[in-house]
Amino acid sequence: MSDMTSAADAPRSPGRPRSVRADEAIVEATLDLLAEGNSVETISIEAIAARAGVGKATIYRRWPGKDALLTDALRRLKGNPPAPAGRSVRDDLVVLVSAVGHHIDPRAARIMPCLVPRVNRSPDEYQLYQSIIEPRRALMREVLRRGIRTGELRADLDIEVTMAMLTGPMLIQRVLRWSPDLDDAGLPERVVDGVLEGIRAR
Amino acid sequence: MSDMTSAADAPRSPGRPRSVRADEAIVEATLDLLAEGNSVETISIEAIAARAGVGKATIYRRWPGKDALLTDALRRLKGNPPAPAGRSVRDDLVVLVSAVGHHIDPRAARIMPCLVPRVNRSPDEYQLYQSIIEPRRALMREVLRRGIRTGELRADLDIEVTMAMLTGPMLIQRVLRWSPDLDDAGLPERVVDGVLEGIRAR
Repeated sequence: MSDMTSAADAPRSPGRPRSVRADEAIVEATLDLLAEGNSVETISIEAIAARAGVGKATIYRRWPGKDALLTDALRRLKGNPPAPAGRSVRDDLVVLVSAVGHHIDPRAARIMPCLVPRVNRSPDEYQLYQSIIEPRRALMREVLRRGIRTGELRADLDIEVTMAMLTGPMLIQRVLRWSPDLDDAGLPERVVDGVLEGIRAR
Repeated sequence: MSDMTSAADAPRSPGRPRSVRADEAIVEATLDLLAEGNSVETISIEAIAARAGVGKATIYRRWPGKDALLTDALRRLKGNPPAPAGRSVRDDLVVLVSAVGHHIDPRAARIMPCLVPRVNRSPDEYQLYQSIIEPRRALMREVLRRGIRTGELRADLDIEVTMAMLTGPMLIQRVLRWSPDLDDAGLPERVVDGVLEGIRAR
């Protein structure tokens, strides 16, 4: 799966010994520079190489260019995508919704909101941002389609809007701290159950 | 209503002639400075006065301090809160949801995302941000409570989560351009109907 590609899997010259430590140093340097306020536009391979203590050629042996390196580095912030168990649709949605806006790396809080204003101006950055979130959206879409097939979910489901209904509350609460009246504990379950059941009286 | 307070209603010395034009110039100067990248923390009354072509005293006659002025100015970006008709809960929710993430002023796209990273660091800025969004949240809460009273909505409704389910999809789509597969046209109706009906097969 393309979204599982990590620095360690990046292409390198045949015969060259694998250097996981250099990969790590390059990704860490990239994330440090972003967290210090450098933008995706202004960050350079030169600066990353200098910070990582490697030559530019070492970076280009591992990544074809800046975009590929940034994509790997930004994915690293989120860790691996969650793995739903594949039994109940409700439980799988809770697993996926729990991962929304959840970052394993504290630098994410400084890096991710700064991407937002840029994403709306630059097609390249929009593409980069979509390449990070689309694999997770694809997982959720698959669970919803399975729910339709098994009869757990309505056959006429509006899948894309449903994904926004599941994702939106978590993102605004975790990223924007939208409501002071919503605790994070138990929120994924409340969102999934709210979306499943609807609010109309029956 | 406190959220309807605008620069023109701000307190001023008794007997002093009302100067709507000075009020306007001060608010416009504030929004221009924010849109140019000045933060809520670093912007000063001095800079606003200089940009508006007024003395600091003119500002202090109208607003008790920087926070009150910023709150008025930021509210101005969004225009007046929507006025639901008060007949069907579904129609009222469509009106309120349509206004989410909708700004009447193009400077908002540069100002609002930059508030986000700051909001999570500074209690003052969090308070300011909440003072802008809470009046709109209160309108939505009132429509949901009315729906429970009239029997249109379920009696055991999780009101705070429902508000996040209605607001979240619009905010992530309009502010983050979250999904390339969701058109803005018709989105408020699709979100409201999705939240009303739920996704579980019945």
